[in-house]
Amino acid sequence: MSRLVEGEWTAEENIETNEDGEFTRQESAFRDRIGPDEAFPVEAGRYHLYISRACPWAHRVAMTRSLKGLDDAISMSLVEPVRYDDGWEFSDTYPDPHHDVDYLRELYVRADDGFTGRPTVPVLWDLQEETVVNNESEEIMRMLDVAGHELATRDVDLYPEGYQEEVDRLIDDVYDPINNGVYRAGFADSQAAYDDAVADLFDALDRYDDRLADQRYLAGDRLTEADLAMFATLVRFDHVYHTHFKCNRRAIHEYDNLWGYTKDLYTTPGIEQTVNMDHIVRHYYESHADLNPKRLVPTGPDIDFTEGHDRDQLPGGPPEALQDR
Amino acid sequence: MSRLVEGEWTAEENIETNEDGEFTRQESAFRDRIGPDEAFPVEAGRYHLYISRACPWAHRVAMTRSLKGLDDAISMSLVEPVRYDDGWEFSDTYPDPHHDVDYLRELYVRADDGFTGRPTVPVLWDLQEETVVNNESEEIMRMLDVAGHELATRDVDLYPEGYQEEVDRLIDDVYDPINNGVYRAGFADSQAAYDDAVADLFDALDRYDDRLADQRYLAGDRLTEADLAMFATLVRFDHVYHTHFKCNRRAIHEYDNLWGYTKDLYTTPGIEQTVNMDHIVRHYYESHADLNPKRLVPTGPDIDFTEGHDRDQLPGGPPEALQDR
Repeated sequence: MSRLVEGEWTAEENIETNEDGEFTRQESAFRDRIGPDEAFPVEAGRYHLYISRACPWAHRVAMTRSLKGLDDAISMSLVEPVRYDDGWEFSDTYPDPHHDVDYLRELYVRADDGFTGRPTVPVLWDLQEETVVNNESEEIMRMLDVAGHELATRDVDLYPEGYQEEVDRLIDDVYDPINNGVYRAGFADSQAAYDDAVADLFDALDRYDDRLADQRYLAGDRLTEADLAMFATLVRFDHVYHTHFKCNRRAIHEYDNLWGYTKDLYTTPGIEQTVNMDHIVRHYYESHADLNPKRLVPTGPDIDFTEGHDRDQLPGGPPEALQDR
Repeated sequence: MSRLVEGEWTAEENIETNEDGEFTRQESAFRDRIGPDEAFPVEAGRYHLYISRACPWAHRVAMTRSLKGLDDAISMSLVEPVRYDDGWEFSDTYPDPHHDVDYLRELYVRADDGFTGRPTVPVLWDLQEETVVNNESEEIMRMLDVAGHELATRDVDLYPEGYQEEVDRLIDDVYDPINNGVYRAGFADSQAAYDDAVADLFDALDRYDDRLADQRYLAGDRLTEADLAMFATLVRFDHVYHTHFKCNRRAIHEYDNLWGYTKDLYTTPGIEQTVNMDHIVRHYYESHADLNPKRLVPTGPDIDFTEGHDRDQLPGGPPEALQDR
């Protein structure tokens, strides 16, 4: 059970550990939906996304918005990459374009004056009702992808018919050992919790490396939401999780297939501009003083996500609509 | 100037930083010598080495002793791998075989009751005079190699004629950017000091990787003291310095020549038994709470120092005396 529902604001994710020293992520509090039969109608210009370029959960949402060409229909703004004791923060460089607030938590309180959880990104904000529609990344990704499709300027479907059951299964399968697994390792408060997390993480990475030997994407020949979920962790791995979260058994760039897969996704039109490695490394190394007291930021590995890959020899490829014409 | 001459005992090496946040290693205090014309004569059974299997400085001495077969002539004992506030410690598992003491610092005070520095390993101890002869690793290595040669059971010369000037130059050249460079990175108290250290470190590693492309050892075709100095850092690099000291630009096992060179030395008869990776990783990750507050020990990279190498295609090789007959 999270210790965060005590009413104290904090930026330290790792206080969410149980008595065995295991990291336990808080449940997202806002779970409404946009859709034709939902409380919030599909309307261009009505919603705003608050994200951090550092955050892997926000990243899957930002990638969905970018791939589908929802930039004009759903506005988006960033927070400062480094998070101190008062949580995600706006600034002159990264202001809230719609409200005169200094901290993301102020928006959470506007939406629910009894809110005492940890304010997280992404936030899908309704500019008309002035409230949080949803702050659960997987659900926002799905909403933008499916309900948001009528607003999209590109004919990109990341949850295609015939693949949906498998996409749901994959997103679920990747979550615990990989997406959240790196946090379970990094924020573990006991050696046993760390050891368990790292074993699960690398078992899963090994398994997915095998899977990707003869198929281009996680669900087969089509780029799907499952790939965005996986990519958000993989692109951060060698710079951050390997060192900062001590996931140092192997780097992604040392995997036969995961590395090509990561580069393939990185260079898929619409993805690269959603990756801000400066925000990523500064966020992790400077925000977690309990892991990195001196807040020094490493130079990071000498790797190049654009150096080329041979994944296009496998069946399938990114949606036609993404190609430059 | 070290802040350690204030009379306080401490285990935290990184308080030795200057006002620019740069790590500055304290000078070793005991600099006497063993030799025919020195204050301390060459005698089997008279001297004892105190080392830690974790410490790279002690390691070069332990390798010299092992390679030359000085095990019977010069006894050796270990300290506990993890170092807390009271410094290197003896225990039931790792007792001082000659004195009833709990901490290494007690021996330093026996040798000099005004000693207030940081007690370090290696220590070359004179059992007759009950004092420290020397605690400077490079000098002890040289003493064991040259003055100790008459006690050696193997005809192994690590400072051979015709190579001496180059060996001295190499030891000096490797010290600042590599041997001490990893500490300069890890114990830096400012981003600028870290950045400088990492730049120097990888410039030097790149340079030595090139050098080792067409010669088996640092000084050419002969194994020398310079190789022991280099190896002590390289063998610790991927497990410790890459993650704990944030030297994560590249791992040694990713270098074309340094990796084969490391494996070549590791599998040279006499070396492997001087490497205790359990002591190494536990020491660094558990001793430096200011770098790793939770003291969690990573699983470390999945690499194998014994997997084979192709260095024997280059001219030269380990001394004949080291080969099993």
